[in-house]
Amino acid sequence: MQPAAFEAHLAKVAGEVEAALSTLLGDAPAPGETARPERLLAAMRHAALGGGKRLRPAVTLAVAELFDATGQGALRAGLAVECVHAYSLVHDDLPAMDDDDLRRGRPTVHRAFDDATAILAGDALQGLAFDILSDPRTHADGAVRADLVLALARAAGLGGMVGGQMLDLAAEGRFADGRPLALTEDEVSQLQRMKTGALIEAAAAMGAILGRAGPDDRAAVSAYARAIGAAFQVADDLLDAEGESAAVGKATGKDAAAGKATLVGLLGVDGARARLERLTAEALDSLAPFGGRADLLRAAARFVATRKS
Amino acid sequence: MQPAAFEAHLAKVAGEVEAALSTLLGDAPAPGETARPERLLAAMRHAALGGGKRLRPAVTLAVAELFDATGQGALRAGLAVECVHAYSLVHDDLPAMDDDDLRRGRPTVHRAFDDATAILAGDALQGLAFDILSDPRTHADGAVRADLVLALARAAGLGGMVGGQMLDLAAEGRFADGRPLALTEDEVSQLQRMKTGALIEAAAAMGAILGRAGPDDRAAVSAYARAIGAAFQVADDLLDAEGESAAVGKATGKDAAAGKATLVGLLGVDGARARLERLTAEALDSLAPFGGRADLLRAAARFVATRKS
Repeated sequence: MQPAAFEAHLAKVAGEVEAALSTLLGDAPAPGETARPERLLAAMRHAALGGGKRLRPAVTLAVAELFDATGQGALRAGLAVECVHAYSLVHDDLPAMDDDDLRRGRPTVHRAFDDATAILAGDALQGLAFDILSDPRTHADGAVRADLVLALARAAGLGGMVGGQMLDLAAEGRFADGRPLALTEDEVSQLQRMKTGALIEAAAAMGAILGRAGPDDRAAVSAYARAIGAAFQVADDLLDAEGESAAVGKATGKDAAAGKATLVGLLGVDGARARLERLTAEALDSLAPFGGRADLLRAAARFVATRKS
Repeated sequence: MQPAAFEAHLAKVAGEVEAALSTLLGDAPAPGETARPERLLAAMRHAALGGGKRLRPAVTLAVAELFDATGQGALRAGLAVECVHAYSLVHDDLPAMDDDDLRRGRPTVHRAFDDATAILAGDALQGLAFDILSDPRTHADGAVRADLVLALARAAGLGGMVGGQMLDLAAEGRFADGRPLALTEDEVSQLQRMKTGALIEAAAAMGAILGRAGPDDRAAVSAYARAIGAAFQVADDLLDAEGESAAVGKATGKDAAAGKATLVGLLGVDGARARLERLTAEALDSLAPFGGRADLLRAAARFVATRKS
């Protein structure tokens, strides 16, 4: 599959995700159900709808398809990952955190609403993710639902995404004497794996859970996801260092200005590009056992390495 | 069971909850596990340990016991409810929300650490709650684990706790012209049921899920929990209106100062006391089918109505 074909596929997935999330966040309350506070719902819609590449749900769907998982489960699992991703962006953008005004070319949630609403919208989106996964509509087998919850909760928590964001703030010198920490390459890689990689790895793992993949297949998918997760962050650092704000859809050059530890800072642009190529090769190697059935995942790996926004 | 006996029971439960949470939040990383950011973990410990009546886990344990559920499941479910409760307090205390400096007689998390750390500690505690519930150590049957997750996620989200906090901010006039809304008694009751009651109802429901209670028994437990949840909030409003800050462990008189809609404001102190008695009677009535086996839950209802802090 050529990159252009994958981009078309991704656009199709994004449309499905957008429509399903919109339904989920727009459902009228069922009879007897407690009314939903409208301002909060509007902020959740602002956060979760209207943009995003939806790469994580595309990974979940592609892995589920690889293992012949059918039904709504993979889409719903993908929605849950997107809810966690969206909540993390809302909270990361807050004035107390990264203080960003712009996200995907639109005002961030706390700019469009207010800080309190943004905090609560993020909180509600995280809760919604686990609501979606544990709902019987996601899978008939409760053990599968519980496994999905566990995979996502681990990826989102102290040892994953939230922990990585904490390390990132610490690396910027937010908690000590105000000077950025001089992280080693290994430390930056670990931070990025937690902050960004863990959720991409969970997206893939959830596809394998839904497909009831065996241990060897899960290990192969996990190695693939770890490699594209790392590649995604290197590509992000390169886009921040080199990209234009209009194309990327958010402010660029912020990493260097904030003293953020990035692999571009440690390895230089050429070194980071070489790392990106190596990670992409690792991802493709991990898929060898699946032969042609994994072409969609191969295309995703190439897309991650070459994306322009 | 006399109130003093129940307080002794509650203190014993609180000790077990404290010890179990401390273990959970203090475990050394397993081999190969990603390192935990220490500052974040310290903030989570500050939020979750060192106080709290632990009424919610006590309810989960008492309901589970009523239905002869054995093992670690009820304690772990109770820990999960406490994690959600603790996260909500951390976020509610933030400057962008209620801006509180004191909680249980100690500095709030953002005062002891900083706003960013408090946001992330709350986020991580919410994730941890679902991690705990979906872990096979909570129950051997995955369907039970998934049901626990669903009960807690629904109670914590848009139609429950977070939605209720949003309505509370709106009622204070935070989003319109700055004037408090004049809520009706029904609206205040609905707001309080979402903000406070939903989590207490979930605590009880999770005990019934673990005990595989039948529909009639679940309905009885649900009616009981709804009544004590409402009673808990009326008692809270009375304590705020009449209590002394030192005994209550947080600032009192804040509701009136903030223009908060409370049942004391609408019904007066005597009217609120009468409501509290009626709700307690409802709770006790709901337990009639269980006879003497529900004495612990009866004592919990009386404790809620008579607590002094």
